[in-house]
Amino acid sequence: MRIDIITVQPGLLESPFSHSILKRAQTKGLLEVHTHNLRDYSTLKHNQVDDYQFGGGAGMVMMLEPVVNAIESLQAKVKYDEVIYLTPDGETLNQRIANQLSLKGNLLLLCGHYKGIDERIRVHFVTKEISIGDYVLSGGELAAAVLVDAIGRLIPGVLNDETSALLDSFQDNLLAPPVYTRPEEFRGWRVPDVLLSGDHKKIDNWRHDQALERTKERRPDLL
Amino acid sequence: MRIDIITVQPGLLESPFSHSILKRAQTKGLLEVHTHNLRDYSTLKHNQVDDYQFGGGAGMVMMLEPVVNAIESLQAKVKYDEVIYLTPDGETLNQRIANQLSLKGNLLLLCGHYKGIDERIRVHFVTKEISIGDYVLSGGELAAAVLVDAIGRLIPGVLNDETSALLDSFQDNLLAPPVYTRPEEFRGWRVPDVLLSGDHKKIDNWRHDQALERTKERRPDLL
Repeated sequence: MRIDIITVQPGLLESPFSHSILKRAQTKGLLEVHTHNLRDYSTLKHNQVDDYQFGGGAGMVMMLEPVVNAIESLQAKVKYDEVIYLTPDGETLNQRIANQLSLKGNLLLLCGHYKGIDERIRVHFVTKEISIGDYVLSGGELAAAVLVDAIGRLIPGVLNDETSALLDSFQDNLLAPPVYTRPEEFRGWRVPDVLLSGDHKKIDNWRHDQALERTKERRPDLL
Repeated sequence: MRIDIITVQPGLLESPFSHSILKRAQTKGLLEVHTHNLRDYSTLKHNQVDDYQFGGGAGMVMMLEPVVNAIESLQAKVKYDEVIYLTPDGETLNQRIANQLSLKGNLLLLCGHYKGIDERIRVHFVTKEISIGDYVLSGGELAAAVLVDAIGRLIPGVLNDETSALLDSFQDNLLAPPVYTRPEEFRGWRVPDVLLSGDHKKIDNWRHDQALERTKERRPDLL
């Protein structure tokens, strides 16, 4: 899979893509991530990419021309399955969408900044709008990093143990059960006996019950 | 405001906190962000911080002792309003929660990794559990970065124009209206006439109608 990201803050994305799972995915050749500085696509003085909004009001708007230049020059080289704009009023990301996107070949991500991007880009170029949640960030960069991480870890071979992702929260519409590791006792707090029993059927049942109970208590909407 | 973050991947968080709004917030002295490497708090060989889960199964679990050491040695120096664990089964972050947290003094964030943290830490040390959305990430680091960004930009004085954050999506339970900037026309696509009219009452009404229409169409649940 190849993911290209258009941003006014390419530096912000450096460390998330060079650590942990995303680093491993790239080292293994399973994922390519390229960031592109929007300013490089501006033909205006001082590489201008934003301007005041028509109609007045606080906050700058990302201009149409540099974004269109960036999208079209990337599209001339790569065929993208989706051009995704990260925006708080997009479709809310969930595990189902992450699963679907992890099956695509190439994605182009567009990070908003300031007050957002000129509406005409959304109408004429963007094929999918995604929000990572009902809150506002200072830009789409962290949203893009979250999306790439959520997708990237699902690509087969990226996680060491392929069964691991399938047992995560949301994959079966249940939250994950509690987990424990050594020591068995710490300050009088003991690990539940069942987990030490060695009886795998009993352990599986306990985990399923705990997952169900936790989901009922915390997220009844998932059931 | 001071935010401390306990993580096994401190390097992953470097660039998000040294760019854009979060950099500005720190430069202005309005926000202090400190990351702490969990491995520095391990007393085990090779600075071990994770181990196999009791009861068997894929994925490692973050051990109780290093996390407790880290939390308690930070708490000895700083009084925290909340100890927050970032986890997909926590309370789902939204703008209301971000607003509330932006009024706090000191926050301690704990990033999970691998399969999660030993349940006893959640029961005995964590005061709040937050999820940034219904999807699984390879660790809590990007979730912490998102939370810090969502909170940080709300601290008065961080954004240049203080009215700007109040006009964002979600602050009034409406999505933001479309925005446009120069040029007025591009490839035949024109900015709506009303925005060029100079009639501020008409523009305000149009924006409110657009915000309402967009919310009805995309997110009727917010109304």
